[in-house]
Amino acid sequence: MTDSDHQYPLLDRIQTPADLRALPRSELPRVAEELRQYMVQTLSGNGGHFAAGLGVVELTLALHYAYQTPEDRIVWDVGHQAYPHKILTGRREQLATIRKVGGLAPFPKREESEYDTFGVGHSSTSVSAALGMSLANRAQGGSRKVAAVIGDGAMTAGMAFEALNHAGSTKADMLIILNDNDMSISENVGALSNYFSRVLSSRLYGGFREGSKKALEALPPLRELVRKSEEHFKGLVAPASLFEELGLNYIGPVDGHDVETLVETLENLQQRPGPQFLHVVTRKGKGYGPAELDPITWHGPGKFDPETGEMAPKGGGGPSYSQVFGQWACDMATEDERFAAITPAMREGSGLVEYHKRFRDRYYDVGIAEQHSVTLAAGLACEGMKPVVAIYSTFLQRAYDQAIHDVAVQNLPVLFAIDRAGPVGGDGATHAGSFDISFLRCLPNMSVLVPADENECRQLLYTAWQHNGPTAVRYPRGKGPGVAVSETMEALPWGRAEQRRTGKGPALLNFGALLDRSHEAVESLDMGVWNMRFVKPLDLEAVQKAAQDHGALVTLEDNSSQGGAGTAVLEALAAAGIRCPVLTIGLPDAYLGHGSRDDVLAEAGLTAEGIREKIEKWWAGLDRKGNKQRLVS
Amino acid sequence: MTDSDHQYPLLDRIQTPADLRALPRSELPRVAEELRQYMVQTLSGNGGHFAAGLGVVELTLALHYAYQTPEDRIVWDVGHQAYPHKILTGRREQLATIRKVGGLAPFPKREESEYDTFGVGHSSTSVSAALGMSLANRAQGGSRKVAAVIGDGAMTAGMAFEALNHAGSTKADMLIILNDNDMSISENVGALSNYFSRVLSSRLYGGFREGSKKALEALPPLRELVRKSEEHFKGLVAPASLFEELGLNYIGPVDGHDVETLVETLENLQQRPGPQFLHVVTRKGKGYGPAELDPITWHGPGKFDPETGEMAPKGGGGPSYSQVFGQWACDMATEDERFAAITPAMREGSGLVEYHKRFRDRYYDVGIAEQHSVTLAAGLACEGMKPVVAIYSTFLQRAYDQAIHDVAVQNLPVLFAIDRAGPVGGDGATHAGSFDISFLRCLPNMSVLVPADENECRQLLYTAWQHNGPTAVRYPRGKGPGVAVSETMEALPWGRAEQRRTGKGPALLNFGALLDRSHEAVESLDMGVWNMRFVKPLDLEAVQKAAQDHGALVTLEDNSSQGGAGTAVLEALAAAGIRCPVLTIGLPDAYLGHGSRDDVLAEAGLTAEGIREKIEKWWAGLDRKGNKQRLVS
Repeated sequence: MTDSDHQYPLLDRIQTPADLRALPRSELPRVAEELRQYMVQTLSGNGGHFAAGLGVVELTLALHYAYQTPEDRIVWDVGHQAYPHKILTGRREQLATIRKVGGLAPFPKREESEYDTFGVGHSSTSVSAALGMSLANRAQGGSRKVAAVIGDGAMTAGMAFEALNHAGSTKADMLIILNDNDMSISENVGALSNYFSRVLSSRLYGGFREGSKKALEALPPLRELVRKSEEHFKGLVAPASLFEELGLNYIGPVDGHDVETLVETLENLQQRPGPQFLHVVTRKGKGYGPAELDPITWHGPGKFDPETGEMAPKGGGGPSYSQVFGQWACDMATEDERFAAITPAMREGSGLVEYHKRFRDRYYDVGIAEQHSVTLAAGLACEGMKPVVAIYSTFLQRAYDQAIHDVAVQNLPVLFAIDRAGPVGGDGATHAGSFDISFLRCLPNMSVLVPADENECRQLLYTAWQHNGPTAVRYPRGKGPGVAVSETMEALPWGRAEQRRTGKGPALLNFGALLDRSHEAVESLDMGVWNMRFVKPLDLEAVQKAAQDHGALVTLEDNSSQGGAGTAVLEALAAAGIRCPVLTIGLPDAYLGHGSRDDVLAEAGLTAEGIREKIEKWWAGLDRKGNKQRLVS
Repeated sequence: MTDSDHQYPLLDRIQTPADLRALPRSELPRVAEELRQYMVQTLSGNGGHFAAGLGVVELTLALHYAYQTPEDRIVWDVGHQAYPHKILTGRREQLATIRKVGGLAPFPKREESEYDTFGVGHSSTSVSAALGMSLANRAQGGSRKVAAVIGDGAMTAGMAFEALNHAGSTKADMLIILNDNDMSISENVGALSNYFSRVLSSRLYGGFREGSKKALEALPPLRELVRKSEEHFKGLVAPASLFEELGLNYIGPVDGHDVETLVETLENLQQRPGPQFLHVVTRKGKGYGPAELDPITWHGPGKFDPETGEMAPKGGGGPSYSQVFGQWACDMATEDERFAAITPAMREGSGLVEYHKRFRDRYYDVGIAEQHSVTLAAGLACEGMKPVVAIYSTFLQRAYDQAIHDVAVQNLPVLFAIDRAGPVGGDGATHAGSFDISFLRCLPNMSVLVPADENECRQLLYTAWQHNGPTAVRYPRGKGPGVAVSETMEALPWGRAEQRRTGKGPALLNFGALLDRSHEAVESLDMGVWNMRFVKPLDLEAVQKAAQDHGALVTLEDNSSQGGAGTAVLEALAAAGIRCPVLTIGLPDAYLGHGSRDDVLAEAGLTAEGIREKIEKWWAGLDRKGNKQRLVS
């Protein structure tokens, strides 16, 4: 690339959206071009969410051009696509820092910018939030405009439907923009996706596409025609669109890469009262060939060569926990035909690509629909199947009631394979799996298993599988400590910890993936080590023995210290009447930042050194009190 | 009423649905009559869910007649309407025991009967569960038939939409029956409800109603007509129904009180492949005049006079916690125009009837849509409103992710007014609010307040309201101990407990509504008493002082002991390095039965006597160890 490729004469003039609005509309296509190039150039050196942003370059420009941001409110759903928005709202220079410690947040975040009207990360919240903003504006007698931008993938989640249903009945002045690229992170599934495809392939769309600049003008006569036909058939013919049925004024589909028409459309729509629904068709990865061809791979690439699209090789070494799960799923499904795997739109992320190929008849991708995924599993379990719900910790929060009401209360054998437990890294606080131990272990009938390494993950999945009741196996993002994964599957003793080390210092009770970070502390203080494996049922005998033999306990986990595994130990000791000093090490009572998983763990003081220091300090404090003798009473 | 009114010649012959199927179809209307009369007669003496069951008498008969139950699966949504089902499936004699200790469960329950295919209670799970059963059947190569019955109110919840979206794309052989009575527990709200009304008021329905016996025969030509019109307008006219758009084969509306046509329709539909969607129109309370006229009041009446419909007077005394909340909402909204109240379809239950009348412009009933209710609140809060989400503890589970991701992470001032915390009584385990302290207190930024009586409820609501961040105030079903509720509103000291009693025995740390049950124990052991008021932020100073002054602590709450308020005390003591014996009293790690709230608390050992015994036994145990001296170290 020559130097001239890296010039951004128009972008250079845009510090805020007001600067954008000062440009003539005819310049917008050139701004789009620069913006796209800036994204390719910057992200090729850093990685980040990529294809989604490229797809909404024109839509972002049109929104900030037609709306008086920040006074008017734009709510981005999920936020994968918000990079162009960040670039246009004063954060262009920082784009290279995105997802890194201290850098830009991965998604819109209220603390970061007044242009970020609503913090996102999880999908399908935008319509609810925007409706709330619109209703607040109405209650306050304001004249602010509100728009939500939601993808077709996010539209499958129930809460989006709940919000549309409510919006359609409130007559709130707001705009809902459907960004239809026929993709979530993976391919879309579900009837709604088919519906969108039908709409797009209809002649209506054909007509619109050819004369997209006349989209709005063309609309009234068309709707007139439909109205006439209704009259003709005496009420037999319903309105043309699913969204019209929900009380929204449907306009579209329009070409999401024709920025000037978008601006005109948005300006016209601002005059209309009530909830408007604009169907915009975009292409994920637009303008960057490799990403257009393979938007799944280019959803969130690492560094890459902008010329060739060649991606930097991923770090070598052993399999990730997700891969260990995926391999186990294949092996288990081979061994037992009752096995079924369910994913809410996370085939790639959960390690189910190979499983999907091999066991299509026992694979259910339900789309972004966590609630349904869990109750579907319950239904399968009622009929003798043994379903596994492969789900990220943070998204299981969406299906909490279903895990309780449909699985745990009924004591059904559903296995939750909880990926991304603990800090997740670049996606930050919204995606951290910090609470699952706390919110699951309080549920009667539920068992919670916490492998300390890759091989134990496989064996504990197998162990949970044998159990005739609800189970959860939680494991972190990324790779484990590099323990060889055995081909065999062996059920480990139910509810039993394993003692890994004897020593003269306090005892470490490890719950999960941080065990390999305890080495420094263990050596320094000659600690006894129990790898607990089970948060619930907790190995009371091991806890008691550790307390008696060592006189002081340290618990270690990457879940919140509030109500987590360490707390379960405190409960067990209190119930047994054992008074023993306990240091519970886990995540603090705060939302942590973003960075790598290691960075976030470091922020929580959970490096090997941090753990050693915490324990040493605590141990020394006990010493000072002079009561290390006979600590247990 | 004469004796002959109480004869049930046909019902007497029906011990199982097979007996029903042995009758000629023409007898079904008479069975319906007897069934209805049996319900009126039995429930007038006992109370229970009433109007919903009356509305589906014919549908229930038709389903058990057309389906080979229990081999075929009927999944009832929510389960309010399952009384006729229970009567027909061998539980007629026990109907009078429903909702009582040891009696029939309030809803379908798998343990209770092989005819109860899926345990319910919460709404909108039936389509997911039935789809799971159907897919299991497909995977197993079976020929079982599956039907879900879901009300139009339940249809507004997102998870129903998620399931329909998935069902429409799977081609699963299943039947989804929409029981459309234009009601949830209150009136329905939302655009979907308007849509159903439009469908019903169309001439199409007029035609169907008149010739409902020909419903199915009439259908093909009508659909043909629509198809022709589509052709005519070259794709401009979409299919006639929202449900057709989702890939379901829509049939209806049909008269839900014409049992013979229903049977015929169901039998015909069994022959069709793929997901079928049958729209059945019923009247809630059908056949019992007072209930038809006022189905909201007759949703779940207590005892009543079957002749006159006069209901037994409700117990007198002070206001319920719900009423205290409702009054506070009115007072607060009068005082501060930023106040807004949101309810997910629980206006009556949450005590918001008066508020709704007086503050319509700041009242949002979103329908059964808990997820949306919370994120809508977040959107309102972003714009300077101070929204209160009035929600039952058990239903907040449905919006857990929204409480985290949209409220707590963003630290927005949303107040959760959590009603029905702790055991709820007749609705049993599915509705128990046993976990909210555990699942909320682990969230950074979230405060959790637990009033001990009615007046404190009002004052803590006011206190939470002053706080600029997410707060939850939890209170139980029914009445408090009868403390006079002050008209004034006073903010109580943030995060501070109040010492209520000094004494020489152990200290009681009370969290919430069980305080008045501690009296026996307190007197018996001369306990010090702290009314904690806050689970989070916990009053560390009070905990420490109580430990130091009394040497032993008892915590009391009606949340699960796993991760609850008592556990927060254990965490605080461990963090402070205080070793002190603690007895945590709360709900056990088990799903409790149904009965009155008192009954369920008794099952948990949480009567005044039970609490005294627990504490005395523990205290005596400490004594035996001879270490009551210097208990704290």
